[in-house]
Amino acid sequence: MTATPTRTLASFVVETDDPPEWVMHEAKRTLVNLLAISVSASVHPSSARLLVWARAEGAARQARIIASDLETSPSLAALVNGFLAHLQDYDDTHYPTVLHPSAPVWPAALAAAEETRANGRDALVAFALGCEAACRIAMSVHPWHYDQGWHITGTVGVLGAAVAAGRLYGLDADQLTHALGFAGTQAGGVREVFGSDGKALHAGRAASNGVQSAEFARAGMTANPEILAGRRGFWAVLSPNGHNEDELLGGLGERWELQRNGLKPYANGVVSHPIQDGVIALRNEHGLTADQVTRISLRVCHLVPELMNRAAPTTGLEAKFSFQHCAAAALVDGAGHDAQFDLDRVLDPTIAELRSKVAFEIDPAIPEHEAYVTIELKDGRTVSTHVEHASGSPENPLTDEQLTEKFHALVEPVLGAERAQTLFDAAWSLDEAPDVTDLLGLTRP
Amino acid sequence: MTATPTRTLASFVVETDDPPEWVMHEAKRTLVNLLAISVSASVHPSSARLLVWARAEGAARQARIIASDLETSPSLAALVNGFLAHLQDYDDTHYPTVLHPSAPVWPAALAAAEETRANGRDALVAFALGCEAACRIAMSVHPWHYDQGWHITGTVGVLGAAVAAGRLYGLDADQLTHALGFAGTQAGGVREVFGSDGKALHAGRAASNGVQSAEFARAGMTANPEILAGRRGFWAVLSPNGHNEDELLGGLGERWELQRNGLKPYANGVVSHPIQDGVIALRNEHGLTADQVTRISLRVCHLVPELMNRAAPTTGLEAKFSFQHCAAAALVDGAGHDAQFDLDRVLDPTIAELRSKVAFEIDPAIPEHEAYVTIELKDGRTVSTHVEHASGSPENPLTDEQLTEKFHALVEPVLGAERAQTLFDAAWSLDEAPDVTDLLGLTRP
Repeated sequence: MTATPTRTLASFVVETDDPPEWVMHEAKRTLVNLLAISVSASVHPSSARLLVWARAEGAARQARIIASDLETSPSLAALVNGFLAHLQDYDDTHYPTVLHPSAPVWPAALAAAEETRANGRDALVAFALGCEAACRIAMSVHPWHYDQGWHITGTVGVLGAAVAAGRLYGLDADQLTHALGFAGTQAGGVREVFGSDGKALHAGRAASNGVQSAEFARAGMTANPEILAGRRGFWAVLSPNGHNEDELLGGLGERWELQRNGLKPYANGVVSHPIQDGVIALRNEHGLTADQVTRISLRVCHLVPELMNRAAPTTGLEAKFSFQHCAAAALVDGAGHDAQFDLDRVLDPTIAELRSKVAFEIDPAIPEHEAYVTIELKDGRTVSTHVEHASGSPENPLTDEQLTEKFHALVEPVLGAERAQTLFDAAWSLDEAPDVTDLLGLTRP
Repeated sequence: MTATPTRTLASFVVETDDPPEWVMHEAKRTLVNLLAISVSASVHPSSARLLVWARAEGAARQARIIASDLETSPSLAALVNGFLAHLQDYDDTHYPTVLHPSAPVWPAALAAAEETRANGRDALVAFALGCEAACRIAMSVHPWHYDQGWHITGTVGVLGAAVAAGRLYGLDADQLTHALGFAGTQAGGVREVFGSDGKALHAGRAASNGVQSAEFARAGMTANPEILAGRRGFWAVLSPNGHNEDELLGGLGERWELQRNGLKPYANGVVSHPIQDGVIALRNEHGLTADQVTRISLRVCHLVPELMNRAAPTTGLEAKFSFQHCAAAALVDGAGHDAQFDLDRVLDPTIAELRSKVAFEIDPAIPEHEAYVTIELKDGRTVSTHVEHASGSPENPLTDEQLTEKFHALVEPVLGAERAQTLFDAAWSLDEAPDVTDLLGLTRP
C-alpha cells in the first residue's frame, strides 16, 4: 500500500508503544472522568430505554456495559457506553475543535480490551492513540466541517474509535488503514438533533462503528487505501469548504493533543462555561441573589448563540443547550452540575424569570473559552468581570483534586461512597492492572 | 408535533394501507430480484467473512440471514442481508437518482416482519412505502447530494429502511418522525469506497440503522421533529448546494416511484448498461469477435467516466466499476452476468487487450440510460448503434419472464433447480402468505 495520509497515520499508531508519561496520566484522567459521568448518566430515563433495547439484542457476552449487569458484544457495549458518556454533555472537550474524544474512543478501547483480555497499560495506550488520531483528523477539517452542521464527535469520533479498537486487535498498518476506511465511510451525525437523544447516540454509534470497522478489517474485509484524502473521501465530501493536511500529520509523536483536551466543571455545552465562571464569581464576591438582578449582559464568542440560544428551554436536555439557563442557574444555585438541569430547576419560576433577563452580544475577537459578564442590580449598581480562560480549559485545567471531587459527586449517589472509592482506585491504577475485564464490573449496581 | 415536511411524509406512511395493485406487483418483482442476487452473493468470499463476523456477535435469534443457517437480531440480519443485496451491484436502480432502494429497504422490512410475525401483504406494503419515501428523499437532494460524493443508497436508504421497519412496528406518525430523525442523523457512505467491500456495507448499514432507528422510536427515545428541513438537518448538511421540497411531497399517493425503478440485466454499475446493450447488439448483428476490433468508441453521459473509469481493473469488484471491462466482456462473452466479473475474466488477456481499445467522449445532452456505440474493425469497416433506453430502464423494463430467467440463472447454482423453484413460488405468492417467517428459511443451503 502506498504512503498516503491515512496510511501514514495508521503506521504511527501501529509503531507507537510508549507515549510520554504525561500523556498516559492525562489518558487516565479522561477515564476517571468518563466513568464518573457514565455512572451518573446510567440512571437517566433515556439510558434505561437504550438498555432495554440493548438487552433485547441479546448479543454474545464479551464486554460490559457501565453501571449495568448486561454483558454483550464489543460493538454493542461500545454503543451503549458511548451513549452514556455523552448523554449529559459532561465529557471532555478538545478545545481547538469542540470534539469530545473520550465518548467515542474510550468505549471502543474498553470493549476491544475486554474482548482481547488486554492489560490496563495497553488499553491506555490504545485510547491515547485513538484520541490523538481523532483530534488530528478533527483539526484537519476544522472549522469548515463543524460550521457546515456536522457533529464532529460523531463524524470524527468513529475514526478514533477504529484506531483504538484496531490497535488492541493487533491490526497491521494496512489493516488499520482499511479499518479507517470502513470507519470514515460510516461517519455521520448532524447538529440538528442537538438537545435530543440523537446527540448522545452519535457518540455511541461512533464507538460501535469504530469497533465494527476494526473487526471487519481483522476479518479480512477491505475498504479503501485513502479514506481522508481520496477524491470522494472524507475531506472532499464531509468538509468541502476546506481541509488542512498539515494539521493531520505535523509533529506526530512530538505534539500530543491530550494537552488541549479539557475536563468539564459544568454539565452542559462547553461554550457557556466562561459565562458560568463569571456569574458564579460575581455571585460569590457580591453575595448576589436573583431578586436583586435586573439584567445579565454577556459579551461572548459567536458559538454561544450559534449552539446554545434557547431562551425558554422545556426539558433538561434543552437547558443544557441554553446559555440563558446556564447563566440563571449559576446565579441562583452557584453551580452547573446535573442537578441544575433537573426538570424542576428548568421549570423553577425564579430561574425562568432570570433567564428572560439574560442579554448577549457577539464579540468576533473572543475565543470560546473567554467571556465578559456584567450584572445590573435593582439598587443601580453594576458589577462585571472578565473570564479569560474558563475553568477546565487547557490554560486553566481541572486539577486532579477537582477531578476527584467531581468523580465522587457523580458516582456516590449511584453506587455509594465505598464502591465509588473502589472504582476510583481501580481506574486510577489501571496502568498496573493485568486485565481490564474487572474494571467495568465494579460499576455494576 | 407541527406539520413539517418530515412529519407530512410520516403521516402518509402511517395512513396508507392500500397502494395500487401495480405497485404491489412491482414490489413483489423487486423481492424476487433481491432474493436472486442475495442468494447468488452468499457464496462470495466477502459474504463469508461478514457472516463469520455476524455469527460471533451471537445476537438473539429473531430474524434470518439469506442463504445461511444463522438467525440473529433484526438489525444484524438487516445488516448482512443489505450487504448481500448490494455486493454484486445487481440490485434495482431508481433511474432518476441512481438510488438502489431494495438493498437497504427490503432487508429492514423482512427483519421487522419476521420479528413481528407480519403477513406477506403487510411486508409488501411496508416495502412499497419505505421505497417510496427513500426515492422521494433522494429526488429532493438530487443531483447535488450525489455529485458531492455521497453514496445515496447508504445516506437515503437508511431513511427508507426506517420507514419500512417503523410501519411494521406500528409506530404512529410522531414516533415515525423520530425514527426518521434517528435515521437521518446516522446517514453515511461516501463514493470513495466504490469498488471495495465498503460499498455493499453502505446498504447493510443503512438497513441496520433503519431498523434500529425504528426500534429506538418504539422504545420511546426521541430525536428531532424535522430532520430533513431543519437548519442543521439532512438537506442543509448533506446537500448544501441545493434541495427541492416539492420532489419530496408532490403528488404523494398519486405518483409512485416504483414506476421508475429498474431491474438490472447486467451485474455491474447501471450507467454502463446502454453501452453493453449496444456492444452486444453489434456483436450479435455482425458476428464480431475480439480479434476483429481496433477500437470501441463510446459517446456517453458524464456519469460513465465519473463513476466507472477504470481502464485496468485488477479485481472483480473493480471490474464492475470499469466501463472498459463491461464493454470488452460484452463483446467477447455477449453478456454481463457475474461470470463476466470472475477474476479469470478480469485477467483474461483477450479482454484486457480489448479494454485498452475502448475510448469515450462525454455528451452533456445524454442521460444515463442512453449511449452511442461505434466499433471500428481491422478490415476498415465501422459499425455503430444508438441505444436510447437501456434494457432494465423504466422505458424498457425487464419483463416478468426475463426476471424469472435471471432468478433461476442466479439461484440454481447455489440451491439447485428444485429449491430455486420453491423459493421463487413462495416469493411470487408472498401477498397471500400468513407469515413471512418461512420465506427466508427456504434460502438455507
